[in-house]
Amino acid sequence: MQQTFSYEQLYNFTYAVFISMGCSNKDAATATEVLLSADLRGIDSHGVARLSGYVRLWEAGRINAKPDISIAHETPSTAVVDGDAGLGLVVAPFAMQVAIDKAKIAGTGWVSVRNSNHFGIAGYHAMMALQHDMTGIAMTNASALVAPTFSIERMLGTNPIAVAIPAGEQPSFVADFATTTASNGKLEILQRKNDNAPLGWVQDKDGNESTDASELKNGGSMLPLGSDREHGSHKGYALGSIVDIFSAVFSGASYGPWAPPFPAYVPMPTDMPGKGLGHFFGAMRIDAFRPANEFKLHMDNWITRFRNATPAPGHDNVLIPGDPERAMETLRKADGIPLQESLVAELKETGRKFGIGL
Amino acid sequence: MQQTFSYEQLYNFTYAVFISMGCSNKDAATATEVLLSADLRGIDSHGVARLSGYVRLWEAGRINAKPDISIAHETPSTAVVDGDAGLGLVVAPFAMQVAIDKAKIAGTGWVSVRNSNHFGIAGYHAMMALQHDMTGIAMTNASALVAPTFSIERMLGTNPIAVAIPAGEQPSFVADFATTTASNGKLEILQRKNDNAPLGWVQDKDGNESTDASELKNGGSMLPLGSDREHGSHKGYALGSIVDIFSAVFSGASYGPWAPPFPAYVPMPTDMPGKGLGHFFGAMRIDAFRPANEFKLHMDNWITRFRNATPAPGHDNVLIPGDPERAMETLRKADGIPLQESLVAELKETGRKFGIGL
Repeated sequence: MQQTFSYEQLYNFTYAVFISMGCSNKDAATATEVLLSADLRGIDSHGVARLSGYVRLWEAGRINAKPDISIAHETPSTAVVDGDAGLGLVVAPFAMQVAIDKAKIAGTGWVSVRNSNHFGIAGYHAMMALQHDMTGIAMTNASALVAPTFSIERMLGTNPIAVAIPAGEQPSFVADFATTTASNGKLEILQRKNDNAPLGWVQDKDGNESTDASELKNGGSMLPLGSDREHGSHKGYALGSIVDIFSAVFSGASYGPWAPPFPAYVPMPTDMPGKGLGHFFGAMRIDAFRPANEFKLHMDNWITRFRNATPAPGHDNVLIPGDPERAMETLRKADGIPLQESLVAELKETGRKFGIGL
Repeated sequence: MQQTFSYEQLYNFTYAVFISMGCSNKDAATATEVLLSADLRGIDSHGVARLSGYVRLWEAGRINAKPDISIAHETPSTAVVDGDAGLGLVVAPFAMQVAIDKAKIAGTGWVSVRNSNHFGIAGYHAMMALQHDMTGIAMTNASALVAPTFSIERMLGTNPIAVAIPAGEQPSFVADFATTTASNGKLEILQRKNDNAPLGWVQDKDGNESTDASELKNGGSMLPLGSDREHGSHKGYALGSIVDIFSAVFSGASYGPWAPPFPAYVPMPTDMPGKGLGHFFGAMRIDAFRPANEFKLHMDNWITRFRNATPAPGHDNVLIPGDPERAMETLRKADGIPLQESLVAELKETGRKFGIGL
């Protein structure tokens, strides 16, 4: 059912596809690295599984393979970046670099992005800050699949937030999560297996609780983190809204139910109030707050103390955000990346369009 | 069971108590305004209900009524503020003002605070930014009551996050929420009524699910937003951790299980790695991203669209974060603030120490 590929095999294939779309060598390399970081870290829904989707968006004229990405407005600690309808995989690292460059001088940098597309995993972009001894933040809006508390209409995307904080001897703290109870990727996995979803992940089109992982195909919607009002779904709804506003209302991208859809066969919303998808990035120099060596000693202490918190019965230890993804990356770099056979077939089909073999 | 007071009655009483503790006129006025903003907005656990607790902390020598609040370190867009063990109700507005002043010049301002105490409701401080056409952010760590996912040890406070975003014709977007399934204040209300809590709010000392609202008194712990791993508690745990790190590891305050307890009878933790409680504030000028009038038109559009999203059966309309608190403020300004009789008795007892009547 699965076939395993080395990172290099998938890298070469993906790079060749982006080159065939017309990307520059540099952009193709960036897009490939960002996309495959998801496969390495075990977030399978956001890696090569999306490559064919990007190609279809390009075929539909919704992605510009040769974008002129520019800074539309700036202050000492902020900027708005216009992605010129480029691949989010390329626009996002550009914008995050602007945030990092601002932080070098102003202490922090904050960049809101319009006119972009799906940017892969948020964690990749947030982690760009780590090598500069900075905390990195990344978020993005996305096509509407999520109903606010007390609603049955899809108004928000799964709108993820990533925060990467450097440590010293310990590995960095890297949180990267959708602001919904479960990510859409997890629902897709259940659909493929014909399994039920736990209660609290989705509701049906009338707002009733449901365990049908395919409920979205019948007009249902995903639920914000918290699942229902009694368990704090209004907080997940607020978080998803904040991501939408910072990413799209700050920058002039399209927001809420008007966010452009990822599947190329879904028509674009009418009366879009802005351009493309939006993202938001932040970089904060740790020594803009306290000396870096002092900060790192305390981050190491924080991480060690939390890792050694008394575990619940049946668990060996408490995890630090980023632990599972880092373990997966080590494993897959050594043993390769397993792909479902249906995905392999789809990738081969996509490659055939350009005469590229996998 | 309840007695209703006008805002002025509670203001005069609270102000007189802070003056009796030795606060300056200006600090007493600030502390009173911040504290009572919770009662006005219906967050009853964080208003005058805490006044006697502040007095006991002052009696125990843990609160300095005449703090020399200072900027310990700064860059163009950041600062660390040392609260000199002052009332958080006074330290927090000072620090938020620093963030606002930084934003006027650098576009954004970010301030981490050490050596502070409980700061009332996060929303008050975030909302300070609104009148300057800025987005405001406020968060704080707090005494450890919350167990990380897969743990039975209390490691984090309820660590709230507030985000206030200005609009045009529409009222501002104001989210203010604990990063737990439910706030400690809601548990306290259930305890007073001898009611059960819904499953997913707390666990017992062994990590079993529980509906006992008094479970914390028996060694149990509160649960992060998401309740359990299957419903995303690792995301709530990550959010609470981010608040703890931004508030305390950035600034040099005490973090995680070492955060100073609010009840004065609870001994201070040993080997504290920093000074006092920590907070984190942010201010972002909206015109650091796009022209303010354009931004406000789109925020109005965002708010109107979400308010008019299709409601679930049994609901009239979808709420925007801040709606319930604003409605409550209007009501209580007109009709007064109802207090439980037990709280009135406690306040009278506290007033008697200083010869102040309520």
